[in-house]
Amino acid sequence: MMLSNMSLRVNAERLKSRLETLARIGYQEGEGITRLAYGPEDVKARAYVGDLLREAGLTVRYDPAWNLIARWEPAGQVEPGDRDQPGGQNERGDDNGRSSELRSSGSGLSGRSLPVVVMGSHLDTVPHGGPFDGALGVMAAVEVAQTLSENGWPIKRPLEVIAFANEEGTIGGGTFGSQAMAGLLGPEELIWLEDEGSALARAYRSLGLNPKQVPSARRPAGFAAAYLELHIEQGAVLERAGVPIGIVQGIVGINRYKITLWGRAGHAGATPMTERDDALVRAARFILEINERASSYGLGTVATIGRLEASPGVFNVIPGRVELYAETRSLKEEILEELESFLKKEVGSAGSLEVVLKKPPVAMDQSIMEHIATACNALGVGYQFMPSGAGHDAMNMAFLAPTGMIFVPSRDGRSHVPEEWTDWEYVTLGAQVLLETCLRVADR
Amino acid sequence: MMLSNMSLRVNAERLKSRLETLARIGYQEGEGITRLAYGPEDVKARAYVGDLLREAGLTVRYDPAWNLIARWEPAGQVEPGDRDQPGGQNERGDDNGRSSELRSSGSGLSGRSLPVVVMGSHLDTVPHGGPFDGALGVMAAVEVAQTLSENGWPIKRPLEVIAFANEEGTIGGGTFGSQAMAGLLGPEELIWLEDEGSALARAYRSLGLNPKQVPSARRPAGFAAAYLELHIEQGAVLERAGVPIGIVQGIVGINRYKITLWGRAGHAGATPMTERDDALVRAARFILEINERASSYGLGTVATIGRLEASPGVFNVIPGRVELYAETRSLKEEILEELESFLKKEVGSAGSLEVVLKKPPVAMDQSIMEHIATACNALGVGYQFMPSGAGHDAMNMAFLAPTGMIFVPSRDGRSHVPEEWTDWEYVTLGAQVLLETCLRVADR
Repeated sequence: MMLSNMSLRVNAERLKSRLETLARIGYQEGEGITRLAYGPEDVKARAYVGDLLREAGLTVRYDPAWNLIARWEPAGQVEPGDRDQPGGQNERGDDNGRSSELRSSGSGLSGRSLPVVVMGSHLDTVPHGGPFDGALGVMAAVEVAQTLSENGWPIKRPLEVIAFANEEGTIGGGTFGSQAMAGLLGPEELIWLEDEGSALARAYRSLGLNPKQVPSARRPAGFAAAYLELHIEQGAVLERAGVPIGIVQGIVGINRYKITLWGRAGHAGATPMTERDDALVRAARFILEINERASSYGLGTVATIGRLEASPGVFNVIPGRVELYAETRSLKEEILEELESFLKKEVGSAGSLEVVLKKPPVAMDQSIMEHIATACNALGVGYQFMPSGAGHDAMNMAFLAPTGMIFVPSRDGRSHVPEEWTDWEYVTLGAQVLLETCLRVADR
Repeated sequence: MMLSNMSLRVNAERLKSRLETLARIGYQEGEGITRLAYGPEDVKARAYVGDLLREAGLTVRYDPAWNLIARWEPAGQVEPGDRDQPGGQNERGDDNGRSSELRSSGSGLSGRSLPVVVMGSHLDTVPHGGPFDGALGVMAAVEVAQTLSENGWPIKRPLEVIAFANEEGTIGGGTFGSQAMAGLLGPEELIWLEDEGSALARAYRSLGLNPKQVPSARRPAGFAAAYLELHIEQGAVLERAGVPIGIVQGIVGINRYKITLWGRAGHAGATPMTERDDALVRAARFILEINERASSYGLGTVATIGRLEASPGVFNVIPGRVELYAETRSLKEEILEELESFLKKEVGSAGSLEVVLKKPPVAMDQSIMEHIATACNALGVGYQFMPSGAGHDAMNMAFLAPTGMIFVPSRDGRSHVPEEWTDWEYVTLGAQVLLETCLRVADR
């Protein structure tokens, strides 16, 4: 790897060691890492990361959605207060409210800094997850902030490191904390927060937080100059291509459908092949058609039939009905619409199609993408532009600020499993690209 | 319909009226007919049929498997005794053992008639079944016997009408009574009979019968000169072809498999179409391949995938495993073997195939088929040769005697449902063909 002309380098050993420490929180031999949102392991992980951030000189607080927000003001700048915060702040220390450390409310201060540069990701995992999903983005952001602060590096903008709450959605919806920050909580989530008996409301109360206050975590569009997130790819595109850095063009939109295909049930013995209207044979053709159609769009578009049930589901009756789950994802809204038309045509009159989710694609910011590319070029690191097929906190932050994502390779494309792995060389490289990009954005 | 040159005719009105009476036993409005094996409706149906048979001049008994066996000796013949019975006979009246009517034990009598001609089917139904499955074959046999007896028609051989026990297998295995008679009970059935707590053993005890004695219902091969069964087709072949009579060539063999196909589970968003090994897409190709292959053999061979489960079965994970039920049926053993090789090849190394059933095909007797065809020709009735895709008591009786089956059309091919229907014209025609065939066989 070529040195950047800035010669400011992340501490690879420190980052590795901290990721390893974090990976022990919630780890069980053979079971991977289980650090469920709001649970005791999540609390412990946040306490650990909060400590690191305070050691690095950042001010740490939790917002009402339990997003951990750490801020670093550039040298000579005045703590800017919180005029960018629309809601009441639930001011908390870094150890889940038990710390006496409070930040200055600052609303009366005259000084106000430039819009902040935010880096972040999440610390919660799926059940039996791996050591990098989310953790890498948070720890790399900590590393970048610490590298800047310990070097007293002069930057124009303040920095924030955010560990978003409940990205995996093991309780409530996915990317919950960043949705709250971006004011994107849906009606369902709002109902859960109001419902004292819901798992989500109980989770907040168990942390000493008021679930009804969660929506006040919302921050205004423009509060940040940029949001940057380093993440493992969770697919095998980079590994197959032998490219260490992916620059995300956008996060695909997701449409989900429950589809029913009708045929005619019949005795499997007494009904000759020529007399059949077998719903499962119809479904088989349907699966291959949609598979071929989605493939024709190339990288950035996928379709998946994840579930299928044939009824009545016994050896000796020709299936009369098939119900299936279909999901389409694409960077392009118009492709999602084309695929929906295609699905409707294939289902035709002998079936039904119910839309259960429509989540439009979210484009990453063009100038941020260029900054990442410039950073890679400065470092002499190979990169390619690519979609993110999975959702991330970045897709919500894109509603608040120009947003970019950096991907590093996942071994065998595996994620959300104990075997999830990214080579340390890529971890370092990703953090370095994050640092370089951060500097470019923070000095604009 | 042309008259047979014999001018002996079944009584169409009587047959219809009796089938209608029988159809009221176990009938519920909108629910069809539920006359479960060994249950009170089955007992009532057998009492009714037993009465009819005695009125017609037949001697009625139940064997140890609760098969109702009614016998008619041609005029001038001596009651033959029972030297054809290997097991001890549980001699019973026609009203479930409460009658004092006993048949002569006859073992000491010197006279012995020719091997008997047997006609029969069953009286039990599936839950929510229709009025003809089984019932038609029994009632037509009663009608044929009565037509002969009331006309004092001279025939050489004795006749038997049998209503087999538990054909539908709602308790224990299907075609249970005829299996017992043919000595074909499997190890599982024998265990149930020995197990006092089993539903099957309890059912026999509730009728005052000893379940352990059921296997003694076995009769020796050759005891009968022929077994003839009239049955509804339960498919739509005859209806589509506009042909009133099907001459069954054989009862298809049935192989059943549980098949697992492996792919590679993966994130539905992060895995491009080109990087997938989707087990459900594999399964879709598999379904179409086996469907096409089975179709290539024409009438008499079918393959059905009746059940399919994709795992993990959620919207956002590419299925990594599919489990499915496959069934093949064919008149020809070698086709079943070819299809099994084909399945094994398609499953290959990334999957597994478990055989759960192998039931070989049973051919009908060539000379009986010719007698049926001659009968149809004599009556001027159209017919076609065809397979039976479903199992019947005939497939067990074929181990004891030359066996033939006559099919009449099922409306829309439907059976085992309340809507099961066969037009009365075909009912009459079927019974008349049964009569003509019986005469040809009985006089050989």
